[in-house]
Amino acid sequence: MVPRYSRPAMTAIWSPETRFGIWFEIEAHATQALADLGVVPQSAAKALWNWWATNPQIDVAAIDAIEAVTKHDVIAFLTWVAEHVGDEARFMHQGMTSSDVLDTCLSVQLVRAADILLDDLDQLLAVLKRRAFEHKLTPTIGRSHGIHAEPVTFGLKLAEAYAEFTRNKARLQAARADIATCAISGAVGTFANIDPRVEAHVAQQLGLAIEPVSTQVIPRDRHAMFFATLGVIASSIERLAVEIRHLQRTEVLEAEEYFSPGQKGSSAMPHKRNPVLTENLTGLARMVRSATIPAMENVALWHERDISHSSVERYIGPDATITLDFALARLTGVMDKLLVYPARMQKNLDRMGGLVHSQRVLLALTQAGVSREDSYRLVQRNAMKVWESDGELSLLELLKADAEVTAALSPAEIEEKFDLDYHFKQVDTIFDRVFAD
Amino acid sequence: MVPRYSRPAMTAIWSPETRFGIWFEIEAHATQALADLGVVPQSAAKALWNWWATNPQIDVAAIDAIEAVTKHDVIAFLTWVAEHVGDEARFMHQGMTSSDVLDTCLSVQLVRAADILLDDLDQLLAVLKRRAFEHKLTPTIGRSHGIHAEPVTFGLKLAEAYAEFTRNKARLQAARADIATCAISGAVGTFANIDPRVEAHVAQQLGLAIEPVSTQVIPRDRHAMFFATLGVIASSIERLAVEIRHLQRTEVLEAEEYFSPGQKGSSAMPHKRNPVLTENLTGLARMVRSATIPAMENVALWHERDISHSSVERYIGPDATITLDFALARLTGVMDKLLVYPARMQKNLDRMGGLVHSQRVLLALTQAGVSREDSYRLVQRNAMKVWESDGELSLLELLKADAEVTAALSPAEIEEKFDLDYHFKQVDTIFDRVFAD
Amino acid sequence: MVPRYSRPAMTAIWSPETRFGIWFEIEAHATQALADLGVVPQSAAKALWNWWATNPQIDVAAIDAIEAVTKHDVIAFLTWVAEHVGDEARFMHQGMTSSDVLDTCLSVQLVRAADILLDDLDQLLAVLKRRAFEHKLTPTIGRSHGIHAEPVTFGLKLAEAYAEFTRNKARLQAARADIATCAISGAVGTFANIDPRVEAHVAQQLGLAIEPVSTQVIPRDRHAMFFATLGVIASSIERLAVEIRHLQRTEVLEAEEYFSPGQKGSSAMPHKRNPVLTENLTGLARMVRSATIPAMENVALWHERDISHSSVERYIGPDATITLDFALARLTGVMDKLLVYPARMQKNLDRMGGLVHSQRVLLALTQAGVSREDSYRLVQRNAMKVWESDGELSLLELLKADAEVTAALSPAEIEEKFDLDYHFKQVDTIFDRVFAD
Amino acid sequence: MVPRYSRPAMTAIWSPETRFGIWFEIEAHATQALADLGVVPQSAAKALWNWWATNPQIDVAAIDAIEAVTKHDVIAFLTWVAEHVGDEARFMHQGMTSSDVLDTCLSVQLVRAADILLDDLDQLLAVLKRRAFEHKLTPTIGRSHGIHAEPVTFGLKLAEAYAEFTRNKARLQAARADIATCAISGAVGTFANIDPRVEAHVAQQLGLAIEPVSTQVIPRDRHAMFFATLGVIASSIERLAVEIRHLQRTEVLEAEEYFSPGQKGSSAMPHKRNPVLTENLTGLARMVRSATIPAMENVALWHERDISHSSVERYIGPDATITLDFALARLTGVMDKLLVYPARMQKNLDRMGGLVHSQRVLLALTQAGVSREDSYRLVQRNAMKVWESDGELSLLELLKADAEVTAALSPAEIEEKFDLDYHFKQVDTIFDRVFAD
Repeated sequence: MVPRYSRPAMTAIWSPETRFGIWFEIEAHATQALADLGVVPQSAAKALWNWWATNPQIDVAAIDAIEAVTKHDVIAFLTWVAEHVGDEARFMHQGMTSSDVLDTCLSVQLVRAADILLDDLDQLLAVLKRRAFEHKLTPTIGRSHGIHAEPVTFGLKLAEAYAEFTRNKARLQAARADIATCAISGAVGTFANIDPRVEAHVAQQLGLAIEPVSTQVIPRDRHAMFFATLGVIASSIERLAVEIRHLQRTEVLEAEEYFSPGQKGSSAMPHKRNPVLTENLTGLARMVRSATIPAMENVALWHERDISHSSVERYIGPDATITLDFALARLTGVMDKLLVYPARMQKNLDRMGGLVHSQRVLLALTQAGVSREDSYRLVQRNAMKVWESDGELSLLELLKADAEVTAALSPAEIEEKFDLDYHFKQVDTIFDRVFAD
Repeated sequence: MVPRYSRPAMTAIWSPETRFGIWFEIEAHATQALADLGVVPQSAAKALWNWWATNPQIDVAAIDAIEAVTKHDVIAFLTWVAEHVGDEARFMHQGMTSSDVLDTCLSVQLVRAADILLDDLDQLLAVLKRRAFEHKLTPTIGRSHGIHAEPVTFGLKLAEAYAEFTRNKARLQAARADIATCAISGAVGTFANIDPRVEAHVAQQLGLAIEPVSTQVIPRDRHAMFFATLGVIASSIERLAVEIRHLQRTEVLEAEEYFSPGQKGSSAMPHKRNPVLTENLTGLARMVRSATIPAMENVALWHERDISHSSVERYIGPDATITLDFALARLTGVMDKLLVYPARMQKNLDRMGGLVHSQRVLLALTQAGVSREDSYRLVQRNAMKVWESDGELSLLELLKADAEVTAALSPAEIEEKFDLDYHFKQVDTIFDRVFAD
Repeated sequence: MVPRYSRPAMTAIWSPETRFGIWFEIEAHATQALADLGVVPQSAAKALWNWWATNPQIDVAAIDAIEAVTKHDVIAFLTWVAEHVGDEARFMHQGMTSSDVLDTCLSVQLVRAADILLDDLDQLLAVLKRRAFEHKLTPTIGRSHGIHAEPVTFGLKLAEAYAEFTRNKARLQAARADIATCAISGAVGTFANIDPRVEAHVAQQLGLAIEPVSTQVIPRDRHAMFFATLGVIASSIERLAVEIRHLQRTEVLEAEEYFSPGQKGSSAMPHKRNPVLTENLTGLARMVRSATIPAMENVALWHERDISHSSVERYIGPDATITLDFALARLTGVMDKLLVYPARMQKNLDRMGGLVHSQRVLLALTQAGVSREDSYRLVQRNAMKVWESDGELSLLELLKADAEVTAALSPAEIEEKFDLDYHFKQVDTIFDRVFAD
Repeated sequence: MVPRYSRPAMTAIWSPETRFGIWFEIEAHATQALADLGVVPQSAAKALWNWWATNPQIDVAAIDAIEAVTKHDVIAFLTWVAEHVGDEARFMHQGMTSSDVLDTCLSVQLVRAADILLDDLDQLLAVLKRRAFEHKLTPTIGRSHGIHAEPVTFGLKLAEAYAEFTRNKARLQAARADIATCAISGAVGTFANIDPRVEAHVAQQLGLAIEPVSTQVIPRDRHAMFFATLGVIASSIERLAVEIRHLQRTEVLEAEEYFSPGQKGSSAMPHKRNPVLTENLTGLARMVRSATIPAMENVALWHERDISHSSVERYIGPDATITLDFALARLTGVMDKLLVYPARMQKNLDRMGGLVHSQRVLLALTQAGVSREDSYRLVQRNAMKVWESDGELSLLELLKADAEVTAALSPAEIEEKFDLDYHFKQVDTIFDRVFAD
C-alpha cells in the first residue's frame, strides 16, 4: 500500500481494527448459533454481544503483544477478548478452526472492497454519461493506427468508455458474488466438531452465502477470479487514460486534464501542462494487473490447504483494491473536469484539407456516371495536391476548380459530400443502445 | 500451438479454412441484409448463397497467393470469392471495413471454442461426480501443510473439485457471453456507410449479440475477460493435478494415474510409475495462464484502434483454447481411470498410531470430570510414546493400558473415540449441497 | 509458433530433424568418450560416426512411428539409429538417462538461438549507428509527457536506442553463457553408472560448459534467466516501436515506416499510411514477455525433477526465440528504411512560436541586470500571447518589439537566445560515450 | 510493504529520510562540481557541506507541508534546505532537472538494496555450504516425478542449492552494475544547461557510472533487468522451499523446519509440526516474481519520458527488495537450523525393499553369463514379490534364496550390488566442482 495512492474508506477495510472487528462478529455470531443449538449456554453469546454493544476500542498493540507470546494470531485475539468479556468467553470458537475465522473475514473484506469499487464505478459512469451527452455531437477525427481515418464525435468516445465500464460493473458484481462465501467447517472441512447450521447462521448474518464444500479453507479459485476481474477493470482504466494522454499531446491538444487558472505547469515553460494524472493511472493499471498471476498461482494449494496463499494475500488484498479504488476515483475526477477543445478538434479535422471526405466524392462521381477508373483519377490528382501541401490546400476548393469534376457534379453537390453530419446520423442510435436502461 | 497438446475439433476452429468460411458467412449475411434494405440487388445475395450451397472447397493457397500481391487479407479473400461467384460478388462488403469481418469472425471462433470447453467441463464434471459418489465414504487422511490433520473421505476431495469446476463452468458461460458480439459498423464505428440493421441481421444469424458501440474494433476488455477466465480454469486444473501428483508419490501412494496391466514404467525399475499426465497438466496450466497478461495489455489500443492486439491474438487465440481443451480432456481421462487405493489410505491414516484421534479423547476425559490440565497430561504422555515410535505403537492400546485413563473412561468409551465415522457424519450434507440441482 | 512471425533459420533450430541430429551428436560423442575410457569398443563409436558421415536423412515419421509403440521418444530414436547403424549401436547411451540427452540438446538449441539473436542485435546496432550519425544534428523537439519540452536531435534518439540495444547484447551474452551447459550425469545426477569424463568430452565437443551439479536435469533457473532476458529485449523493442508509432501519427508525422512510391495505404484514403510494422512489434513484445513467468514457475521442480517444465518449454522455447528473432529483424528493417522528415521536425519545433526558448531569455534578462521578478513578467507577457495564438505569433518577434525587453537586450542578443545549436553543443560528447569502442 | 515481511536495514533504504538524504548528497556534489567549474561560488558548496556536517535531522513533515503548497517534491525539498542553509543554497540544482535527482537517487537506493541482497546471499551460501559438507555422504533416496529413483546424498541436494544461489549471486552482481548509473543531464538529456563534468563528479562520488545517454530519465530497461533478476532469485528460493516442504510431509519426514523442544505445533495434535516458513517463502516468491512484468511494461515510456513508471516503482522498488531480503534471511534461518533425519532417510530408502538396486543385479547376472532375457525374468520375479509386499519383503533376501540366481552369483556378489556407496563414488568430484574457488 502506497499512501499517496490510497483513500481512507478502502484503506480502513484493511486495518487491524477492522479485521479484529470482523473476527469478533464471526465468533459472536457463531457462538449465538451454538447457543441456539444448545451446544453452549445462551449466556455466552449474550456476554459477547453485551460487551460489543459497549463499542469497545480494539487494542491492536495488546493483541500483538499476546501474539508475540502465543505465535498464533487467532488465539491471541481470543485471549484478548476473554480478558474483557470474562469467563463466558471460553465458549467462543468451539469446534472451529482458525481458517474459519480468517477466510470468512477475508470474504467480508473483499465484499466491502467490492462495494466501494462498485460505488466508484457508478460515479465514473455518471460522469462519463454526462460528458458523453455534452459532447454527443462534437465532431472530432477518428483515428486508426494513430492516423486520421473518418470523423466521429467526442461523445462517441465517451459512450464507448461508458459501455466498457458498464461491462466492468457487471463483471465486478459477478466477482463479488464469487468471493461472498462463509466457511465454518472445522479443521478439514468435515464439520466433525461443528454443526453446519452454525455456518448457515454466520453466513446469513454477514450477508454471505455458505461455502458448499470447503477444505480447511475457502477455495482460492474464487479469489483468483476476483483479482483477475480487478485486472480487467484496471486495463480499461489504462485505455481511457491513454486516450487522454494522446489527446493532450502538444500537436493534438484536443483535450486536457484540468488545469486551474493560476496553476503553473513549469516555472519556465508556459506551454508545459502535462497529463500527469492519466500517466499515473497507466502505471497504477500495471500494478493492479500484476496481482492476477500470483492470485492464480495461489489456487493449487497442497491437499486440504497449505499456507502459501496467505502472504500473497497480505500484499494483493490491500494493494489491488486500494489502488483500484484510488485509480477509479482519480479517473472520475479527470473525466469530470476534463477540458475539451472543440475548436481544436475541428482544426485537426480540417488539417488534412478535407481529405477525409475523398471517399464520398469518389462514390458520387461513380454514381454520376463517371467510370470508376476516371473517378479515382480525378479525386486522386486533387487529393495528392492537398496531401503534398500538408493540408494547406483545400480539397473542396480544388475539386470545385477542376473542370472535369464539375462536369459531373455541381459545386453544391460537391459541397454536400463534405458534410460532417453525414457521419453522425447514427449517433442517436448508438446512444440509445449504450444508455438505454 | 503444439501438436501433441492439441485435439482436432478445437484445432479446426483456428484453421484458415474455418476462418475463411466464417468470413464468407459474415459477408453473405451482410449482403443479404443490404439486399433486404434495397441497397444492393437481391441477386447478389442469392449468387453468394447459391455458390455456398455447392459446398465449395476453400483454396487457402490461392487466397494466400492473392494476398502476397494485395498485401491485404480481406481483399484477397473477396477477390478469390469474386473469381468463383462472378460479377454479383462486387456488392459484397459494401460500407464495411475489414475489422467488421475480422472481429466478428474472432467472436464466432471464441464462441465455438467456449462451446467445446463447456462440453469438456461437462464431461469432467460427470466423471468427478461418478468418482465422488464411488468414494463418498472412503476414509483418507486430510492434510494441512502436507501434515496429517484429521480424517476426510476421498469422495470429499472429489466433491471439492466438482464444486470448483462447476464454478468454472459458470464463469466460462459468462465469458462466452462477453465475447459473443458482432460489429458491422464501418471504419470508425459510426455506421456512416452501413445501416445498423445489417449488423443486427448478421448478429442474429450468427447467434451473437450486437456490439452496442464499437470503434473500428470490438473492444478488447471482452477478450481480456475471456482469457483471464481461461487462466482461472487452468489454475483449477493445476490444483487437481497437484493433488494427484502428491497422492501418487512413493511414500503416499493413495492413488495413481492409470497404468495398464502390461505397461512398463521403466525397463529396469518396476517401482517407477510416474504421474506424468498430471505433471504435464501442471505445465499446461502455466501456459494457459500466461495468456492473461498479454490479453489485458491488448485493451488499451490507441484511439479508435491500433493493430498491436492482432499478433497477440494470433498466438493466444489458438494456444490458450487448444491447450485448455487438451488439458481438460486429459484431466477427465486421468480422473476417469484413476487407480484409487483405499487400503493404502487406511494404512496412512493409521500410520500415526491413532494420533489423529487424540483430540477427541482429550475432550472425553474433560467431560468425564478430569481437569483440563490432567486430561492433557494423560493424553500427551501416551501420544508422545506413539509419536516417538514413528507410529509403531497404537495410541488406543496405550490408553487402554493406562490406569489413570481407564479410571475415567471405559475401554469401550475410549474405542468409541477412535471411530472414523464420527468425522463423516456430515458427508451427506456436503454432498447434498454440492450435487444438488 | 505463428508462421507469419517466423524466419527460417531460427525455425529450423526447433525442427524435429535438428533435434534428432543434436541427439545423435550427443550420443555419438558420449560413445566416443566411453570408448576412449575402455567402457565400450572403439568400433562402436566408429560405426556411429561413419554412418553420420554419410549425411543420412533423418526420418522423423519413422521415429514417430516407433515412439507410438514404445511411448518413449529417446528409446524410439535409439531404435531407429540402431536399425541403420547395426549391432554396434547397442553400446550407445550406456549409463545415461534420457534427460542427459534432452537437456543437453535444449542447451545446444538455446545457444544456437542466442547466436542468431546476437547476430540480429548486431545488425540492428549497425543500422541504428548509421542512422544516428546521419541525423546526429537533425533538430527535433524533445518531449516529456507527450508535451514539447526542449530541443534534441533525432540522432540522439537513435543513440539512446543504440545504447539500449548494446546493453541488451551484453545481457544476452550473459544469458547465453547461463544456458550453455551440458549434463551427462545419469538418473539422479550422481554419475553412478557413467564417468564424469564422458560429460566433459561431450561438453567440450559441443562448445558447452559442464553442469557442475545436476539432478536428473539441468537446473531451470538457467532457463528462467534466459527467457527473462528475452523479455527485457522485447521491452526495448516495444520502446522503439512506440516511438516510431508516435512520430508517424498524423499530427506529428516526423518519421514514417517506409512506404514504396507506388504503394497504396488505402484504396480510398491517400492519407492512410499506417505504422503497422511497429504496431505489430508492440504486440510481439507482449508475447515474448509473456514467457517470463512460466519460465520462472518452471524453476521449482519437485525433488530431483518433475516433468512439468517440459510442456512449457515446448511452447516457449520455439515461440519466444522465433518471435524475438522475427521482431529484431523487422525492427532492423523499419529503422533501416525509416523515412525521416527534418522539415516537419523543424515545423513542429516552431509550432510553439519559439516558446521553447523562453527560459534562456529569462536568464539573459536577469544576467543583464533586470530583477528576476521583472524578467519573468516580461517574458511571460510575450509568451502568453504566443501561447494563446496557438503558435501563430513568434516569441522572438514579440520580444524584439517589446521596448522594456530591448532596453536590456539588443535584438542580436535576443536572437542569440533562439539558437538551437546551444542545445546541441554536447551531442559530440554523448556520441563519443555511446559509440566509443 | 508488509511489515511482517520486512527487515529494518532494507526498509530504511526506502524511508523518506534516506531518500531526502540521498537527494541532498546529489545536489551538494553537483554544486561542488559547478563550483569547481567556476559556474557557482565555492562558498555555495561549502555552505551545503558545512550544514550537512552538523548531521541535521531531516524534517519530513516540514518538507511534505511545503510540497502540499508547491505540488512539487524536489522544489519542496530545495526550499526546505534553503531555509536551513541560507542564501547560498540558491546555487543548488542549477541547470538540473528533477529527474536528475530522482533517478540518480533511485540508482543509489537500488545499489544499496543490491548490496544487502548480496550479503544475504553470502550468508545463505555459507549455511548451505556448511550443511552440504555436514551431509555430504548422508544417503537419501533421489526422486523423479515424486517417485523413488536411485540413491543420492542429502549433501548433494544442498550442493545443488549452493550452486544455484552462486549463479544467482553472479546475476545480481550484473543487475547491480546495470542500475548503478548516474544521470545529471538536464531536461531532455542534452546537457544544454549543465556541463557533463558535473555528472561525472556526482557519479564518481556516489560510486556510480555515468549514464552514457539519458533522455529526461535513466532508461528503464536497466530497472526491468534488475527486477527480472530478483524474480529469478525468488524462483530459486521457491525451489528450495518446496523441497523442504516435501521432505517434511508426514509420510516422508526426512527433514523439518526447526522446532524448539518446548514448542507446540497444535494444542490438541502433537503430530502437527507444519513447514510454515517454507510455505510462506513459496508465497513470497510469487510476490517478488510479480514485479517482473510491470517493470518490463515500464520500459516503453513515450518519447523522452512519461511518468507512468513512477507509481509502479513506488510499489515494486520497496516491495520486491524488502520481500526478497526477508525471504533470503528466512531461508537462511530455515537451512541453518533444519532438522535432518538420516535414520528416516535410510528407512525411506529401504521402504521399497531394495528395489532401487534391481538394475545392478540385472547387469551382474548378464555379466555372469546369464542371457539378458533370463536375467530380466529372474530379477523381475523377485522384484514383483517385493513390490506387492509394499516393501515388507527384502529383494536381497529373496535373491539370495533363489537357486537360479545363486547359481550365477554368490551371496557376497549379490550383496555387493546392494552397496549404496556405489552411487556415491563421484560425490567428491561434484563437491570439488561446486565448492572450488
